[in-house]
Amino acid sequence: MMPRVAPRWPAWLLWRVACAQGVSAQQRTREAASRLPGLGGPRGAVGARPLVRRGSSWAPSRAPEVMLTRERYPVRRLPFSVVSEDDLAALERIVPGRVITDPQELEAPNVDWLRTVRGSSKVLLRPRTCQEVAHILRYCHERNLAVSPQGGNTGMVGGSTPVFDEIIVSTALMNQVISFHDVSGVLVCQAGCVLEELSRHVEARGFVMPLDLGAKGSCHIGGNVATNAGGLRFLRYGSLRGTVLGLEVVLADGTVLNGLTTLRKDNTGYDLKQLFIGSEGTLGVITAVSILCPPKPSAVSVAFLGCPGFAEVLQTFRTCRAMLGEILSAFEFMDAACMELVRHHLRLACPVQESPFYVLIETSGSAAGHDAEKLSGFLEQVLGSGLVTDGTLATDQRRIQTLWALRERITEALSRDGYVYKYDLSLPLDRLYDLVSDLRTRLGPRARHVVGYGHLGDGNLHLNVTAEAFSASLLGALEPYVYEWTARQRGSVSAEHGLGFKKKDVLGYSKPPAAVRLMRQLKALLDPKGILNPYKTLPART
Amino acid sequence: MMPRVAPRWPAWLLWRVACAQGVSAQQRTREAASRLPGLGGPRGAVGARPLVRRGSSWAPSRAPEVMLTRERYPVRRLPFSVVSEDDLAALERIVPGRVITDPQELEAPNVDWLRTVRGSSKVLLRPRTCQEVAHILRYCHERNLAVSPQGGNTGMVGGSTPVFDEIIVSTALMNQVISFHDVSGVLVCQAGCVLEELSRHVEARGFVMPLDLGAKGSCHIGGNVATNAGGLRFLRYGSLRGTVLGLEVVLADGTVLNGLTTLRKDNTGYDLKQLFIGSEGTLGVITAVSILCPPKPSAVSVAFLGCPGFAEVLQTFRTCRAMLGEILSAFEFMDAACMELVRHHLRLACPVQESPFYVLIETSGSAAGHDAEKLSGFLEQVLGSGLVTDGTLATDQRRIQTLWALRERITEALSRDGYVYKYDLSLPLDRLYDLVSDLRTRLGPRARHVVGYGHLGDGNLHLNVTAEAFSASLLGALEPYVYEWTARQRGSVSAEHGLGFKKKDVLGYSKPPAAVRLMRQLKALLDPKGILNPYKTLPART
Repeated sequence: MMPRVAPRWPAWLLWRVACAQGVSAQQRTREAASRLPGLGGPRGAVGARPLVRRGSSWAPSRAPEVMLTRERYPVRRLPFSVVSEDDLAALERIVPGRVITDPQELEAPNVDWLRTVRGSSKVLLRPRTCQEVAHILRYCHERNLAVSPQGGNTGMVGGSTPVFDEIIVSTALMNQVISFHDVSGVLVCQAGCVLEELSRHVEARGFVMPLDLGAKGSCHIGGNVATNAGGLRFLRYGSLRGTVLGLEVVLADGTVLNGLTTLRKDNTGYDLKQLFIGSEGTLGVITAVSILCPPKPSAVSVAFLGCPGFAEVLQTFRTCRAMLGEILSAFEFMDAACMELVRHHLRLACPVQESPFYVLIETSGSAAGHDAEKLSGFLEQVLGSGLVTDGTLATDQRRIQTLWALRERITEALSRDGYVYKYDLSLPLDRLYDLVSDLRTRLGPRARHVVGYGHLGDGNLHLNVTAEAFSASLLGALEPYVYEWTARQRGSVSAEHGLGFKKKDVLGYSKPPAAVRLMRQLKALLDPKGILNPYKTLPART
Repeated sequence: MMPRVAPRWPAWLLWRVACAQGVSAQQRTREAASRLPGLGGPRGAVGARPLVRRGSSWAPSRAPEVMLTRERYPVRRLPFSVVSEDDLAALERIVPGRVITDPQELEAPNVDWLRTVRGSSKVLLRPRTCQEVAHILRYCHERNLAVSPQGGNTGMVGGSTPVFDEIIVSTALMNQVISFHDVSGVLVCQAGCVLEELSRHVEARGFVMPLDLGAKGSCHIGGNVATNAGGLRFLRYGSLRGTVLGLEVVLADGTVLNGLTTLRKDNTGYDLKQLFIGSEGTLGVITAVSILCPPKPSAVSVAFLGCPGFAEVLQTFRTCRAMLGEILSAFEFMDAACMELVRHHLRLACPVQESPFYVLIETSGSAAGHDAEKLSGFLEQVLGSGLVTDGTLATDQRRIQTLWALRERITEALSRDGYVYKYDLSLPLDRLYDLVSDLRTRLGPRARHVVGYGHLGDGNLHLNVTAEAFSASLLGALEPYVYEWTARQRGSVSAEHGLGFKKKDVLGYSKPPAAVRLMRQLKALLDPKGILNPYKTLPART
């Protein structure tokens, strides 16, 4: 018999995570810290192996060098100019003392954090202002020099690292908050502000950032916008296409497009900022962002539940949306294989009875008592009806982080399991998990693990396959199979990660030829020489 | 002494609107009906004069003919072809029996509902499918014939009526719901579906449309999207840029861009649909829409409050947002002059003690009891602190509509007050009302009324000035003064109405030259011959 959840958080339930499952206080702290990769993660961790730091190419010292992109992939350098000594001198005049050419300093920004692609850029620039970026691009445009804009370098698809010798333009020094208005909640800041620092800034003023993601300790807001990042608050606060109010962008020829409005509504002409949201730095370089922050909820709760099957996960979602309504802020799921990975590689304990599926539900509201009543009613319903076989919940920050770590650290656990084939798909809810089961059968023992997890509330599946090492035959079994399967469901082959370098050639699985043609025309209009983040987003011409 | 609002809706408060202020049951029904212009409005109305029907050029039979746009405004016809007999025969083959050339039938679609602009189109087409629209545009593109796409013709800026002899392409027969998914809440429908009918469709299935506006009885969803309509639910559900998931669009040359995805997340390439949202039919004709509908709230309440000054209105908003949090779904304001207009012209009674300002607050939630508690706490706070001097509230549909009518019918009352100069501005909250006071002083007795109302929660002021008749000198006192004032506050000269024909030349007050230049480039890319809705959105070249 499973325990029934009574209203008003019974003590056994509140404390179950911390005590009953043997999670120590130290472990909680560690897990909480590692929720912020790039900050707590690698430094605070204690374990068999150092954690992977998302947001730089930090790696164990004995890690083998990453293969050059131009060697692993069939890609040819386009006829851009090569940086000369004269160019370096000219760039030095634009950003004095901030032209980096030291090969050691250039190692990290040439490699993505997943260590799957590597460029060979010889120059990195660190502008501080929009005007400096404009001067740089005007110069590069004239000289036909290719540019790779880079924020926190936390992307998943090789979009933020050079492919050949593109000049890296880093937003790292463009990290100033320009203004925050504590009535409207509108934040205006430079593109290089780190998401977590912005969160702290607005939370101190009673607001939250409308987006949150695992890489928040390293990722830059400009990169988030350029990727159209989704993440953990999408279900509640929606897409950046709605919450970003304005952008300052430098076009390929150095023209500054100043659209840093702080207005919620502005229907004067075409909404140009939308061109740059999600265009991965291929149409312009975002130098500042104006974004609407929602008021900080005064009460947050997290329930972690075990479900006997995926049908029950879906039914739990329906029940949850009906009963929790406006306070629902996240609905995430993970399968038993994910739980096994975080247990094995990260030593995280499962806080509930072992189940085929797990669900993490977060609520955020303005009245703790009301939220608790709603959540109790919901839990009673799903436990009573057998949709959920066991559950635990948390209302204080530390326990909430412990539960969130189980979901957020899956990526890290996967990276310790071997070579990872990663897919980020949007699929119709009722078919969302079928692909995972299907692939397990298809791949058999060739795969070490086939796991599925993700933002169920947004129809977003993260499908990952691990194996001992990279293998062309396993890749052949996965692709184009996964993309064709997705296309048959009219899904998206990139829900939130973008296309970058690694996924650009699969665009056609989700977009018709007329759309791809128009995309190419937009690229040609905005960047006629193609110097901005070349080899990314749009498929190579065959 | 003002009455204090006690928790849990005392009977006197609930009934105050209906009884204490002498509003009869018939009047309530009438007002409720007239909330749906184009349906109940003109038919059900009883009053001194017939109501203005928004959504067609319906007008009293003795209304003077509207002056031709080409005569009132300095605009010259561009060198498009003129429709010939051969053209009519060709179009008849594309949409057999649906080529309208009867001058009487063409009267209404040539005039906007405000009766301020009038074209002289000789042909209206009624396609039923995307393919028919594609054939029409392919033909017109080849023949260099200009086209004016038209939905419900409820726009405020002359965007949906022809200026000269453009062929009107009406979406009226493209009114089919294609699909609705009752788990995801995604609606897919043709562009000509009337918003109110869609509302009924999804409400019967437990969802609501993410937008609502006064013209819902007539406006088409395709027109809403083409205008990027804001409206009454913007505060809660955000912009169409976030809730529209996909569009089917026909480009100027007849190419069909099929982007009718139903996915919440899709980061494959550039988000082309954003080009067409808010572009007022100048870049393509929207033929179908996929839109995300939120679950229908089980409890809705409306509070109507009187405030002693605008500072108190702002402070009430701050308090409200803090105390009502996630259940706040609208925060509208109107000044005493607006109340006087609806009282005088529409015989609506003020439900609270007369005040300099009135606020309408709507809450929508999933638990009536919780919402009532939150709202009671808030009302106690604002009444106790003197921010609000009197208030009433409603929780049943009929009384809610009675209160909403006070706000929604201001436009109608204004149209009965004389010639109306209309401005739809986004301004910083703390300066929002200053312009209204400023103009009252500036215009003195030249204006009959200077009124301010609007979506305060979105920073959106509707500023209206009435006078006995149109006068060039009054216009000269208003413009460019209003636009310059707005530009100094970095506001928007069109918050939600768009630019259409009447506001296109003021784009430069809200957008810098580089942005206007890029807009022109986009227009040239997507519609090289300029046949789509010419003379709209972009300023005339000087």
